Formats: sequence, structure tokens, C-alpha cells
Amino acid sequence: MSAPAAVEFWFEFASTYSYPASQRIEALAAERGVPVVWRAFLLGPIFHEQGWNDSPFNLYPVKGRYMWRDLERICAGLDLPFRRPSQFPRGSLVAARIVSRFAGEPWVPSFVRAVYRANFAEDRDIAHRDVVTDCLLEGGAPAAAVLADAESPEGKQALRDATAEAARRGVFGAPSFLVGGELFWGNDRLEAALAWDATAA
Amino acid sequence: MSAPAAVEFWFEFASTYSYPASQRIEALAAERGVPVVWRAFLLGPIFHEQGWNDSPFNLYPVKGRYMWRDLERICAGLDLPFRRPSQFPRGSLVAARIVSRFAGEPWVPSFVRAVYRANFAEDRDIAHRDVVTDCLLEGGAPAAAVLADAESPEGKQALRDATAEAARRGVFGAPSFLVGGELFWGNDRLEAALAWDATAA
Repeated sequence: MSAPAAVEFWFEFASTYSYPASQRIEALAAERGVPVVWRAFLLGPIFHEQGWNDSPFNLYPVKGRYMWRDLERICAGLDLPFRRPSQFPRGSLVAARIVSRFAGEPWVPSFVRAVYRANFAEDRDIAHRDVVTDCLLEGGAPAAAVLADAESPEGKQALRDATAEAARRGVFGAPSFLVGGELFWGNDRLEAALAWDATAA
Repeated sequence: MSAPAAVEFWFEFASTYSYPASQRIEALAAERGVPVVWRAFLLGPIFHEQGWNDSPFNLYPVKGRYMWRDLERICAGLDLPFRRPSQFPRGSLVAARIVSRFAGEPWVPSFVRAVYRANFAEDRDIAHRDVVTDCLLEGGAPAAAVLADAESPEGKQALRDATAEAARRGVFGAPSFLVGGELFWGNDRLEAALAWDATAA
């Protein structure tokens, strides 16, 4: 059995189950020697295609109630801090543009983890530039320059392109993991993605 | 940590992910010394409440395509035979009435497993009485008498009551597992349900 050459981690900063995935993926991937490719995208346009103008967890409250309880249990099991955000979903546009524009930078994993913690453990509004700035600084990124670049026409286009690519490759929810053309959806599929033997497919 | 006093297994015979759960649950529960309570219900009325008149896997084809591939991978990983049914979802009414009416009978687990295999490994139409009869006989049930009773007014009412109870207790999909009031949804949550420590909740 051979490990995947890389795993693409497709995430949306507003996505609840992407929070535990974002905190777990680096250590698990490193154990298996699998590089992680960090791919932010927006679920909004993808949900819109399915006729949803809000998170399905808001549109279907019975499912939403379950999800919050399930997430709480998952975080407890992983010893991850969790506080249900007072607003859901939160605006992920700025943070997602940053990842789309700077995906290869060494501070990106730390930034991603910090944004998820801000949203789901600290109940901070990740749509605000001061929160995003704190998350950038945590990983040592040049925050002001990064923010300016992410908000440029090129930054905006990078995220639009990433979201279109996600849809084209069959991504319909977050977190998703792509190993070559093989799609895995959900925090609970992370291990399967990392164990996927592309040569045997 | 104390094991659950029992786990209620809520399933819909048309539900794809209930297939691997139905084949796994007995051995896993027995290992942990947890009795299984077999609860069939219908997803149709519950989906209808959410505004769906078909399986969400048909209504949202991108998600449906993923589900079939994911199910195929899961069955391969468990060494379970799998053949994508030529019709989906299949009519589960008769088989579900039987379980609702005869839940405590010793042949029920064998019957449930056989119906799922007929649907998802053998591509047989579980809505047909001859298929259901074969599945009953596999576990040694008195097939003709069971079928007649399940189709009686009492048999029909038993399934209506079970479906109403599922909805009342927050079940919105299948398979679902209830440990007391604690709900777990999905084949991939079976282990968490069996490990749930009700005394620590």
C-alpha cells in the first residue's frame, strides 16, 4: 500500500465540521508523510446552486440541532475547545481570499487553525479585519500587506477561481479531501483520505 | 466508563448507509455487551416534513454521486458485497411493518440483514412479497403468518407509531442510534454510540 502523494484539504471558514478537521489534519498527515495542500473556497455559491440561500443547518433546524450537539461531542473527544458561535454562519470572505492568494506560504496552516479557533472556540467575528489580523500575526504573516493583497482584484479572483474549481471537481460540502480525483467528504473521512491508495484505485 | 444499557438502532430499509450499519452492529454491540433494539421506520414522512418528495441523494445529484462512490469504498473496506441497486430508493413499507410488529422476535436481526443484502448486494426488489418471504425464511420466521399480520391494521399502525416516535425524538436520517436521549446519526457514528457513557453525559 502506498500513501497518497498529497491530500488537498478543501475548507470553508464558516463550516462547523471543518473546525476539527483543521486542527487534526497536519499531525495526521505528517505521521503518514503526506503533504497537505490548503484550499479555501466558499460554500455559498455551491449551496446556491442547490437552491439553498443559507446553511442547510439553518434551513433544516432538526439537523442543525443535531450538528451542534455532535460537534460538541467531537470536540470534547479531541480535547478541542468549543463554544457555539453566537452568529452562524460567519462571513468567511476575507479569510478565504487570503488562503486562495497565499496558499503556499509557511504561515498558512497556523493562520487557518487560528481562524477556526476564533470562530468556533472564541466566538469572535472572523468577518472583521482586526480578528483576521490577529490570526495572521499568530503565524508571523505580514498582516497589513497580506490583507491589502487579498482584497485586490487578483485576490478576489483567486477565491472565485478556487470555488469554481471545487464545484467542477464535485465538492459539495466542507471539509472535503481530494486525493487525485478521489473525493472524501467530512471530518470523519480524513483518515480514509490519508489512507487512500491511489495506485490501487 | 460504563457501557450503554442498550442501543436503539433506527433504520430505513431504503437507506444506503444503513446497509453497512446493519451488517456491523450485532458483532460490535456483542463485543461491548450492549443489547441492540431494532427499530424500523420510514424516512418518507420525515423527508416530506423538510419539503423533500424524494431521497436527497436523488434531489441533489452531486451529493448522490458522491454517496454511491463512498458506499462502494466503505463496503470494499468491510469486505461486504455491494451492487448499486437499479432502482433507488426501493419500497421499504412491507419489510418495515414486519420489524415494527415483531421487533422482539429472535429472527429479526437475520431478517434485517437479509433485506439489506437483497437491496444493496443482490439488486432485488425488497418491495416484492416473494423477496421479503425469502428474507423471512432465512432467519426461520413463519413467513406467511408474519406477512399477514404485518399487513393487518395493527401492523400498519405499529410502523406509523414508530415513524412518529422517530420524528419526535429528533431522528432525521438513517441509520440513527439512540442511547437514552443521545442521538447519533450515520454508519460512521456507530462506534461512538456504542462507546457513549450515559452516566457521564
